[in-house]
Amino acid sequence: MSEQAHWPTAAEHDAGVHAAVAQLRDRVHVTPIMRSASLDRLLGCTALFKCEQLQRTGAFKYRGASNALASLPPGTTSVCTHSSGNHGAALAAAALALGIDAHIVMPENAVPTKVNAVRAYQGTVHFCAPTQQAREQAFAALQVQGHHAVPPYDDWRVIYGQATASVELIEQTDGLDMLLAPVGGGGLISGACLAVQAVQADIRVLAAEPEGAADAHASLLAGRRIVDQPVDTIADGLRATIGVRNFHVLQQQLESVLLVSDDEILQATERVWRHMKQLIEPSCATVVAAITRYPELFAGQRVGIILSGGNVDTSKLLAALR
Amino acid sequence: MSEQAHWPTAAEHDAGVHAAVAQLRDRVHVTPIMRSASLDRLLGCTALFKCEQLQRTGAFKYRGASNALASLPPGTTSVCTHSSGNHGAALAAAALALGIDAHIVMPENAVPTKVNAVRAYQGTVHFCAPTQQAREQAFAALQVQGHHAVPPYDDWRVIYGQATASVELIEQTDGLDMLLAPVGGGGLISGACLAVQAVQADIRVLAAEPEGAADAHASLLAGRRIVDQPVDTIADGLRATIGVRNFHVLQQQLESVLLVSDDEILQATERVWRHMKQLIEPSCATVVAAITRYPELFAGQRVGIILSGGNVDTSKLLAALR
Repeated sequence: MSEQAHWPTAAEHDAGVHAAVAQLRDRVHVTPIMRSASLDRLLGCTALFKCEQLQRTGAFKYRGASNALASLPPGTTSVCTHSSGNHGAALAAAALALGIDAHIVMPENAVPTKVNAVRAYQGTVHFCAPTQQAREQAFAALQVQGHHAVPPYDDWRVIYGQATASVELIEQTDGLDMLLAPVGGGGLISGACLAVQAVQADIRVLAAEPEGAADAHASLLAGRRIVDQPVDTIADGLRATIGVRNFHVLQQQLESVLLVSDDEILQATERVWRHMKQLIEPSCATVVAAITRYPELFAGQRVGIILSGGNVDTSKLLAALR
Repeated sequence: MSEQAHWPTAAEHDAGVHAAVAQLRDRVHVTPIMRSASLDRLLGCTALFKCEQLQRTGAFKYRGASNALASLPPGTTSVCTHSSGNHGAALAAAALALGIDAHIVMPENAVPTKVNAVRAYQGTVHFCAPTQQAREQAFAALQVQGHHAVPPYDDWRVIYGQATASVELIEQTDGLDMLLAPVGGGGLISGACLAVQAVQADIRVLAAEPEGAADAHASLLAGRRIVDQPVDTIADGLRATIGVRNFHVLQQQLESVLLVSDDEILQATERVWRHMKQLIEPSCATVVAAITRYPELFAGQRVGIILSGGNVDTSKLLAALR
């Protein structure tokens, strides 16, 4: 993806976000806000959780995919993407809802449950070697065959779609001081920045990122996208490199990226499971880990927190019960 | 507990349930109803899930404990019970909310997380040898010391309290054909029977029970309480023997008890985790297992299903992620 010379204006972003809100009405679940008195005590703030683990396909990704599909060129009968995770299933499900075909490039070593999720929504899986080059080649080949491309996060339609989670969160809560979401490729968090701008709310936006995939943090420090960071984290949904468009938005509007360790992520995962009974995935727990690690930033604040998804390998967890 | 010569009349039961509804207002969470399109498809019915895993202390037990405490004799400053599980934590939490002391007899081999839950609500744990006799002796000794007894299920105040979950479920849904809940000691399911009667609803009530703790099923067949059934099931919340009062209600009003195997329970647990992202405990999954095992009973029906609780050992599950 090449750097853009011309970026949308603030007014164009606002229009994109508002159009997504209108387009996704009746297509996505308005997920509930949950609270936990125990977690409020543990975290030292008022934590208002936006439950995207209860979104269709178990993650916020369904919003961006649905918004991209809502404005396809006339006559489009099939879409394609590459994904080792939630975006593939989301695109397949959104395509199925419209009656069009979805082709998903996945690495040969993708988690079987994620492959099964794509197939459950009748998506066609195209396996490739587990390298970035093989993935891009396979994705390009699908586009040459005429399938319309819907990238996982570096796409304004996708970013505006993800922004609707934050718009709802702001509308469902009565005054937020801060909004906190994880950052991987940056679709959700850049959407949060544009949502706050679009509804003219006075809310600070912060991101949580694993230390083992800290490219967004490094990129903002350096003032340019760092694309060769080593990646090693349990938060498999956040291993992607920050997108071009996403980075541009974060540079302008994000307050900061808070780094958390895998141990902190796992502790936070267990706390949400125990106190909220919500089966979130580790990537999603980074936000809770960030509040625990930097309590002084959040003390006494009303914090809107996006729980991004709940697609853990439940068979693996079940084995622990036996 | 001795058999009663005189049972409350239907009108007395109705009054007890309605009083509990009034007394628990603002003391318990009105838990939400959740639905899952995927589970509806898998189960072949319209499944309306009452989410008591989101109740305070993570289980419906908080209702019964709170209702018992709402009508204590004047001057009562402490309560006691015996429990290896959710009732102990529920009573401790309900007592803490009223500012009175709670004493909980627990077997020495109780799961550490459950002991910790009682202590987190400032309950005093009294360990006993892991036998029924030792447990009853310890419980009797606490009563002699003047602590007011709140049994886990064989108590009308507790049963009426549990009934409020079913009253809410009926009010929150627009016409149910059936109501399905697990049976262990029988507090929740006898409450469901009395709730349906109290609100004069035309709803069939069914119970789900593990094959490895099938005393309610055996008792209803025999026409008398069978108290010496061998117990071996993963559903640790349902290992108790059906209570005297509970059995009396079930004999009069329950349509049937549906038995399910541990394998079916585990499969159902995983399905709820995967499709609903709700971290329910295996005891709670018996209801979903029952629909899968006896699909002809439920086909096309609107089924109100009480998810009873979500207190699994999250540390154990977390270990599976690492």
